[in-house]
Amino acid sequence: MKEKLAAFKVEMGEIWDLNMAGALLGWDQQTNMPPNGAEERSEQLATLSKIAHHKATSDEIGKMLDELLVYAKSLEPDSDDARLIRRSKIDFDKMTRVPSEKVAEFARVTTLAQEKWVQARAKSDFSLFRPHLERIVELRREYADYFKPYDHVYDPLLDDFEPGLKTADVKDIFSRLRPQQVKLLQAIAARPQVEDDFLHLKYDDKKQWDFGVDIITRFGYDWNAGRQDRSAHPFTTSFGIGDVRITTRILENLVSSGLFGTMHEAGHGMYQQGLAANLSRTILANGASMAVHESQSRMWENLVGRSRAFWRFFYPKLQAVFPAQLGNVSMEKFYKAINKVEPSYIRTESDEATYNLHVMLRLELEIALMEGTLKVADLPEAWNTRMQEYLGITPRNDSEGVLQDVHWSGGMIGYFPTYALGNLVSVQLWEVINRDIPDLESQIEQGEFGALLGWLREKVHRHGSKFDPQELVQKVTGSKIDPQPYVGYLRTKYSDIYGL
Amino acid sequence: MKEKLAAFKVEMGEIWDLNMAGALLGWDQQTNMPPNGAEERSEQLATLSKIAHHKATSDEIGKMLDELLVYAKSLEPDSDDARLIRRSKIDFDKMTRVPSEKVAEFARVTTLAQEKWVQARAKSDFSLFRPHLERIVELRREYADYFKPYDHVYDPLLDDFEPGLKTADVKDIFSRLRPQQVKLLQAIAARPQVEDDFLHLKYDDKKQWDFGVDIITRFGYDWNAGRQDRSAHPFTTSFGIGDVRITTRILENLVSSGLFGTMHEAGHGMYQQGLAANLSRTILANGASMAVHESQSRMWENLVGRSRAFWRFFYPKLQAVFPAQLGNVSMEKFYKAINKVEPSYIRTESDEATYNLHVMLRLELEIALMEGTLKVADLPEAWNTRMQEYLGITPRNDSEGVLQDVHWSGGMIGYFPTYALGNLVSVQLWEVINRDIPDLESQIEQGEFGALLGWLREKVHRHGSKFDPQELVQKVTGSKIDPQPYVGYLRTKYSDIYGL
Repeated sequence: MKEKLAAFKVEMGEIWDLNMAGALLGWDQQTNMPPNGAEERSEQLATLSKIAHHKATSDEIGKMLDELLVYAKSLEPDSDDARLIRRSKIDFDKMTRVPSEKVAEFARVTTLAQEKWVQARAKSDFSLFRPHLERIVELRREYADYFKPYDHVYDPLLDDFEPGLKTADVKDIFSRLRPQQVKLLQAIAARPQVEDDFLHLKYDDKKQWDFGVDIITRFGYDWNAGRQDRSAHPFTTSFGIGDVRITTRILENLVSSGLFGTMHEAGHGMYQQGLAANLSRTILANGASMAVHESQSRMWENLVGRSRAFWRFFYPKLQAVFPAQLGNVSMEKFYKAINKVEPSYIRTESDEATYNLHVMLRLELEIALMEGTLKVADLPEAWNTRMQEYLGITPRNDSEGVLQDVHWSGGMIGYFPTYALGNLVSVQLWEVINRDIPDLESQIEQGEFGALLGWLREKVHRHGSKFDPQELVQKVTGSKIDPQPYVGYLRTKYSDIYGL
Repeated sequence: MKEKLAAFKVEMGEIWDLNMAGALLGWDQQTNMPPNGAEERSEQLATLSKIAHHKATSDEIGKMLDELLVYAKSLEPDSDDARLIRRSKIDFDKMTRVPSEKVAEFARVTTLAQEKWVQARAKSDFSLFRPHLERIVELRREYADYFKPYDHVYDPLLDDFEPGLKTADVKDIFSRLRPQQVKLLQAIAARPQVEDDFLHLKYDDKKQWDFGVDIITRFGYDWNAGRQDRSAHPFTTSFGIGDVRITTRILENLVSSGLFGTMHEAGHGMYQQGLAANLSRTILANGASMAVHESQSRMWENLVGRSRAFWRFFYPKLQAVFPAQLGNVSMEKFYKAINKVEPSYIRTESDEATYNLHVMLRLELEIALMEGTLKVADLPEAWNTRMQEYLGITPRNDSEGVLQDVHWSGGMIGYFPTYALGNLVSVQLWEVINRDIPDLESQIEQGEFGALLGWLREKVHRHGSKFDPQELVQKVTGSKIDPQPYVGYLRTKYSDIYGL
């Protein structure tokens, strides 16, 4: 059976290679590709995806898996091999439900849709993007239907990002979360606002870039296994454990945007860089789920990056780089400014108290699109109405509204809730970390992140996707995904800042 | 039959996509990849190459081609479809002659050889590289033997780079060329040398980059279908007609290196950008041969870029960018400096009058290696003897001698002559262009290159590899590859510069 397993790994390794090649083509498209390359690139991505899908869904793999499943029962259940076989079988069953032509069509449609979305957002003209999104919604509904029977049409989409999680679970978690967040937001709104004008002065692009690089280097982001580039929407991607790339976007008139965006992506990047080397070229060489991934990025961005301890170390350095802008601003004033709560249009720039509301809005809209109770043509209006309802503001145009995020253009319906779930998981982990590393705060004050990263690697990163997200969270924290720690964290933090 | 042809094109399109994806992985490896990505990247490249080769040599393609060849006879012989079918058949027969294991072995041996060559060159120690080159020569001889009967063992190798050309043709061309070039070089050596110290002052990297970009933008390099990056060795690659990328290397202590290197790669790039759009995703979407490709790069670099007319336009601009370095240097002095003839060790840095001698030396040595009349062990001595004979200098060590070029370590025996042939073709084309565009020189003096690029697109670029190199040169110039125009060009140019 060992030879069978070895042969299986060779096959799976080749599929992995094809997918990594596709990821590089995608990264390049967003960072480097000249505009005229789009059409041929979309063919190339479609071909890679088609061949990978064809191989991954072949009868040969199916037969190998049936034999290996029996073998897996003789293995230690949490061993890499047992987990690899079981996870491969789940993926195989999922993939064999969807015809290859559909997969190829989806790749073509979304590649083109992303180009159109870039144009539409630049012109703030939703109509340029609309037909492409309509086609994407149709294709996603067809996709879900391959998984009938389901409890909810959104379940199969969600499962692609959060294995094992159901729409009902998410609705339950969010229904407990939302009233508490809305209540907190109202309490904050009743208090005097903190000042943050100084964040909006002109901050030199290159100096911001360099400062961000310095921060994430101290975090432990490994430049021998990664690099940072610019893109319209920051993201992390990897082409193996040894090549994990992040992108960032610097705004010269808002210093916090690039800084926290850079920390966020580095959080994703360090997760991928921390996978056990022996998982390379297998489907386990990935995060446990998007929510667990987001727990890492949000932890470095918010629990670390927006804390007082962090800025006790970094603020004097930031002042030294930007003396004209920050020389007369106290650390306490800066700390409050970067934690200012204010309903705003752009999710990626929103504060911790409003962020989840942005996510819930998207979740509700995409569920409605999938259910067919909302038409794509009506999406901008529905977006604006909900923004007014939850956050009390209405976007002035589509590029700061419905066109702001790349996800739908890439066909990633089912992805958004993972952002909010990631916030919840980050605080669940943070509570355990602080028990295990009692002097964490003073380490952070000294710019030391080694123990923190070491803990994350040991408890989370190295496992890759061996465990489902709920299983991993349970294993590490002793409970499933739970909104209460996050709500408690927000209350404590903002009670202090806003004197609630 | 139209459906058969369409089905064939789908298959060939997918092979093309895989090859283009591989090219992107290769480009990224040389421009962006972090060091730890190397191992997984080599697996990815091997997988893409394996799948593409497997598809390209499948029985299915073979059967399709047999049927389509009959159909091709009913088509206009120079139509895209007829040419595509015939060229595909030739490639298929070539590829299927060689067993896959041999192809894989060759890939393994050359990958290792390239590593060893890097070490050998760094230590200037040929003995480290010798056993690997011995194996490569053996494997290349075996490769040639799959194509028996042949007139010369070197023919099958040459054919990979110059379809249709024979070793006898190349020998004939070079035997007419060499004595004339050697004689010219001797005449130049008897004259006082021109001065070029000012080229070696410190020239700011970014200003050089920007100046190069300005030049090639005026040439007509299309930034919507390309980009420029940095790499250790400049090269051009493409992932389709809409995405043709060049790289450059700027030296702060030698302004001519980056400038002419940039023009050279832009010449390759504009060729690829000028392919007819309907050739996309077929094997015809490429240059006619390496020599024809080189004719384009050398034309823009030398016939345009090292001409007086060119600098009449650009020199005042260059002086304005570098007033401290060039403010007191006359255009005439600058023109002579960039055309200085001086025997030197390194091919890539040699001038127009000596360049072909570097190439002939390599050609003669690799033919002798293939014939078995020269042993690899005796190669360094043979190299040095010929350097003395042709150029009057002897390398001080192997890294500036026999180890300088990457080609042999990559198994690319048969490639070198294309560099010299490219020079010859560039001047053959140039003579026709000057007949067709009588005021070309005054256009260049005004920084106008539209008519020139238009001519090249119409006569050369758009055809891709529909025609064999000799066929294309004949078609455009009325004669086959011929050394006389090039010799005439050199004589005129250097008689003027050196007062012969």
